[in-house]
Amino acid sequence: MSVAAVGEFGLIERVTARLPVGPATLLGPGDDGAVIAAPDARVVASTDVLVEGRHFRRDWGSARDIGHRAAAANLADIAAMGAAPTALLVALCMPPELELSWAEELADGLAAEADAIGASVVGGDMSASPTLTIAVTALGDLGGRAPVRRGGARPGDVVALAGRTGHAAAGLTVLSRGFRTPRLLVEAYRRPEVPYAAGPQAAGLGATSMIDVSDGLLADLGHVAKASGVAVDVRRDAFEVPPQMRDAAQALGADPYDWLLGGGEDHALAATFPPDVELPAQWRQIGVVTAGSGVTVDGAEYAGSPGWDHFR
Amino acid sequence: MSVAAVGEFGLIERVTARLPVGPATLLGPGDDGAVIAAPDARVVASTDVLVEGRHFRRDWGSARDIGHRAAAANLADIAAMGAAPTALLVALCMPPELELSWAEELADGLAAEADAIGASVVGGDMSASPTLTIAVTALGDLGGRAPVRRGGARPGDVVALAGRTGHAAAGLTVLSRGFRTPRLLVEAYRRPEVPYAAGPQAAGLGATSMIDVSDGLLADLGHVAKASGVAVDVRRDAFEVPPQMRDAAQALGADPYDWLLGGGEDHALAATFPPDVELPAQWRQIGVVTAGSGVTVDGAEYAGSPGWDHFR
Repeated sequence: MSVAAVGEFGLIERVTARLPVGPATLLGPGDDGAVIAAPDARVVASTDVLVEGRHFRRDWGSARDIGHRAAAANLADIAAMGAAPTALLVALCMPPELELSWAEELADGLAAEADAIGASVVGGDMSASPTLTIAVTALGDLGGRAPVRRGGARPGDVVALAGRTGHAAAGLTVLSRGFRTPRLLVEAYRRPEVPYAAGPQAAGLGATSMIDVSDGLLADLGHVAKASGVAVDVRRDAFEVPPQMRDAAQALGADPYDWLLGGGEDHALAATFPPDVELPAQWRQIGVVTAGSGVTVDGAEYAGSPGWDHFR
Repeated sequence: MSVAAVGEFGLIERVTARLPVGPATLLGPGDDGAVIAAPDARVVASTDVLVEGRHFRRDWGSARDIGHRAAAANLADIAAMGAAPTALLVALCMPPELELSWAEELADGLAAEADAIGASVVGGDMSASPTLTIAVTALGDLGGRAPVRRGGARPGDVVALAGRTGHAAAGLTVLSRGFRTPRLLVEAYRRPEVPYAAGPQAAGLGATSMIDVSDGLLADLGHVAKASGVAVDVRRDAFEVPPQMRDAAQALGADPYDWLLGGGEDHALAATFPPDVELPAQWRQIGVVTAGSGVTVDGAEYAGSPGWDHFR
């Protein structure tokens, strides 16, 4: 059965019925607007859009996977501000002939990724469109913390990372060459493992800057360096190449460090901390902040792929 | 120059530079997330998506018009909950060959519509896509009022309307037949005049239900009737047919009441009030709530077009 067969209202009803209700949801889907708790009296908000063929392919992951990934991209942005995600709103544009079950499973994935950290899907909109498109807005609460911006890094700070990099990029390369393994990499692409709690944790520890790694580590640290007016140097030996990644790189003629340093979409969090902060287990040092500008690896410009521009 | 020529980051920079900053914006575009004031400690949120060819056509209005209309559709939803809009987030998907100036003027329209009522564009995302798509999320603050839902209408309540109906639908019909006048109707379609302030006003007066008229008056009152478990009867003589609409209807062989009662997208607000509430000037009575179910016009089923389903 297609989404057109049940119509706009039928589809909204079916999808809404599947959504769990989170603790911050004061009024969920079904009215002109949702009402979400914002106990901090400020709300953090971020929007990301995924377009079929550009950000995802239906043959590279299940609808549920794509839902997880769409939610993760947005929830990670909220965490990167130091906030705890509370809610998602989803605008879904679909070809009318799309299978109803695909739309339902996408909603399940979105809802499950949010639900695991106490957030939920509170509203959205649906429309027919020739291009399958998922636009997600995430909201979050700062819990009294100051938002951690990109522009606060200072020379002498340490650069630290929570979560993985390069796994999703490697998985994407593997899939784009027609392979379905190694599982570690393909699964990392399909469902990023985002260290959500590390965001508010870093804010509480006095992180001077923070960013969600979505364009690629060096590119995103470049955003931090530019906004902060500093230079960042990353230590290559802070990154271990897992055996599956080493094997895949060898098989595909790729450099695993291009994935680790240049690949995006694992949604790791990168942050800078004053040098006297003792980093908790979720955070590991990967470099230092110095005076100057730009991003280097072991003191030199990195020759590999720097990141991703969605128009080029 | 095309949007592809400046790239994703260039485009974001150019558009962001044009956006005025509203009073509720604590942190605007440029970071992982925006931070918006939510003094009520609850936030109202709503998402609407507009797809080219389905919700708008580039030859039927300027980019600025389309920006106004996209913003209005969302801001009206916030007002219909009884809240004051504070912020917009915009996901914009564009063909890479789209003129840069078109994207910039779209942003100008979005920003101007929001700015006029003290809200502003605080963030968003952009991507290339074969289908021009605008997904907007609006946020708002309840200012201590209870949200006004669809489900609170009670038999004996009066049904009242703030703003116009049918003008946008008539304008759309006129445009779709290749005409550019009457100006009153075409402009109503291009830039809806939404009675934003009437939303919080109705909430303050004790409105028992409220809805943004976007599917069509009878269809939207149908949502209220269903959610409230009541019947709604609308008086046809509560609607005056403006001369330009009468003439256009005559020329096109249309019934102007199909527009007034069935047409959407003027983003009027419809609400129900206890019978003892004295309606302020912005609100006029158009019917009554009775026991039962469904929506009637002068006591009988309405034979015209009931509204709009975006998948049929």
